[in-house]
Amino acid sequence: MADEHYVPGLENVLASETSISYLDVENEQIVLRGYDLIELAQKVSYVEVAGLLLDGRLPDSARTSELERSLMAEGAIAPEIYDLIGKLPPGSHRMDVLRTGISALASYDGELDDHSPEANGRKAVRLLAKVPALVADGHRLLSGLPVIQPHADASYAGGFLHKLTGKAPDPLEERIFDQSLIAYSEHELPNSTFAARVIASTMSDMYGAVAGAVASLKGNLHGGANEAVMEMLGVARTAGELETIMLGKLARKERIMGFGHRVYMRKPDPRAMLMKEALAQLATAKGRMDLYDVCEAGEDLMKREKGLYPNLDYYAAPVYSLLGIPVPLFTPVFLAARTAGLCAHVIEQHGRNRLFRPRVRYTGPRGLRP
Amino acid sequence: MADEHYVPGLENVLASETSISYLDVENEQIVLRGYDLIELAQKVSYVEVAGLLLDGRLPDSARTSELERSLMAEGAIAPEIYDLIGKLPPGSHRMDVLRTGISALASYDGELDDHSPEANGRKAVRLLAKVPALVADGHRLLSGLPVIQPHADASYAGGFLHKLTGKAPDPLEERIFDQSLIAYSEHELPNSTFAARVIASTMSDMYGAVAGAVASLKGNLHGGANEAVMEMLGVARTAGELETIMLGKLARKERIMGFGHRVYMRKPDPRAMLMKEALAQLATAKGRMDLYDVCEAGEDLMKREKGLYPNLDYYAAPVYSLLGIPVPLFTPVFLAARTAGLCAHVIEQHGRNRLFRPRVRYTGPRGLRP
Repeated sequence: MADEHYVPGLENVLASETSISYLDVENEQIVLRGYDLIELAQKVSYVEVAGLLLDGRLPDSARTSELERSLMAEGAIAPEIYDLIGKLPPGSHRMDVLRTGISALASYDGELDDHSPEANGRKAVRLLAKVPALVADGHRLLSGLPVIQPHADASYAGGFLHKLTGKAPDPLEERIFDQSLIAYSEHELPNSTFAARVIASTMSDMYGAVAGAVASLKGNLHGGANEAVMEMLGVARTAGELETIMLGKLARKERIMGFGHRVYMRKPDPRAMLMKEALAQLATAKGRMDLYDVCEAGEDLMKREKGLYPNLDYYAAPVYSLLGIPVPLFTPVFLAARTAGLCAHVIEQHGRNRLFRPRVRYTGPRGLRP
Repeated sequence: MADEHYVPGLENVLASETSISYLDVENEQIVLRGYDLIELAQKVSYVEVAGLLLDGRLPDSARTSELERSLMAEGAIAPEIYDLIGKLPPGSHRMDVLRTGISALASYDGELDDHSPEANGRKAVRLLAKVPALVADGHRLLSGLPVIQPHADASYAGGFLHKLTGKAPDPLEERIFDQSLIAYSEHELPNSTFAARVIASTMSDMYGAVAGAVASLKGNLHGGANEAVMEMLGVARTAGELETIMLGKLARKERIMGFGHRVYMRKPDPRAMLMKEALAQLATAKGRMDLYDVCEAGEDLMKREKGLYPNLDYYAAPVYSLLGIPVPLFTPVFLAARTAGLCAHVIEQHGRNRLFRPRVRYTGPRGLRP
């Protein structure tokens, strides 16, 4: 085993063959099943994107209606699950609650160990239906707040946002939240999707693979970044204050979350620009252009000082804040949106499987005797 | 991104640098921190091996006593956890129960998000102490059996086996179970350990990384194999019957679990030979040489027909059966033993971290318009 095979972080190693998505960095395009993600976000709904990811083709209106019906019908969660997550310590990290909830849900799925594309597809729809309830209701239970039952005719995004905030969204809020779910829906092979594929490759089940992805996404170097961004933005009332905070962090060589991306490196993340536009609309509607100005000042500073562009998390965080989503749910909402992509990857992995089993470069001693 | 970088299953790709362990296939040796795993299994205890894996050096008698005391002191599990896993459906896969239990335990660890080597080391000891209780007590709760409280002076392995079987083990049983725990303790970068490192590399926490490993180990292509082996051995009463079953499977091109290994390929797994010897001792003591003969006939047949050697799971399964461990707990016990290795890898990953973020070979369409 030659040393030159060791690639820290598997950077640029092609670990999977996939027809689900591709980051075309040269052309600054995120390709989902052949479509441009930004164009999808402008023209179709999250449910249609989920259908595209799971089925491999953009659903027609009949399939979209069927998906919407299933997502509504499967949204209920066994009372035992509420009982179970409601017993966790109130201060539990909401990603830990979500991981425990998804892990427990596995025991209630009668098709758990059927890895056929058909059964996996049905499990994916059940997960898509139930994860928003785990995220929103779990948080409300542990926070001593009442669980929200959205209107029976609420859309997927509208009902989810209502459950999160306790307030039925207006059309602009609903549309922007739906766009954010599309922005987060799928992104090739980030750590969490890779973790899910690695796990699925032992022919373990979809819930376990998604639970592993929740564990991964919690980390500060991954999904946890959107919460870290909001913590920073939350204390800056003016552009000047944010600049002072950021320059201080740079001087102390602290990491500033929300900028740069392993794959994009020094090119813009198209999703960040989508969310920046959404922030402008939302800030205008809510009379909060002050927040937009603060964010843009941070963007300009990082471009000037470090040559780094904002990533999706940087602009999704203030959008979620203006939508009234509690900060501890930013990463769980990211996971809920990503469920479509994760399940598509599990289906693909199970369909043409090869067990992941790499090797190591051993740097320890040899020849010791006990 | 050139196509030649795509390596299905990351076969022979060196994904991590580690001083924890190495499979030296040429010399048929499993190296743990410089020591030969088989020699460790013959000379020291599982607790000492766990100390070796976690600390990087074989513990002296003072450190061993300290570890044993901590493992005893930290073995209790919050009543809320029993309440939580006791509410899962009784037929839940025991690996799903374990995953949910470990995930929930995270919320009770006050050092959860401290990733320093010291805090991680303490969390590892807590996990090592609590996982046997989750495995054994979780199963007994869901099976309507009383939870077992071992003698206060029981060893780690003796107490664990007592909790599993409901019967205090004799010295031979205890020693062989301890050896099996060492055999399963660490094995370089199998899928589950890789999953744990991938997850930990986002700077997510140790419990999440281990929960991901549980999800991975459940799969039939990984830890789930030891249960599959026992299902096959369980129906064969004689060598002739096993041969008939195996030849039938080979004729139908079905996979026979317990043979071959991605890394060992067509060389013997030293751990299988360790457990074969243990099986001989245990079968002699219990007057069950019939089981030994059946297993050996299967080994001979696979060598003759396919040129494949048995792996650890093939001989660990009948050993666990003679020890009185319920078959659904074979894989959870494997995970309990592997906890030492998994935690050592998480500590190492957090200590010198690089985020895992590979790329894909995209095979889907381009240029579609919604």
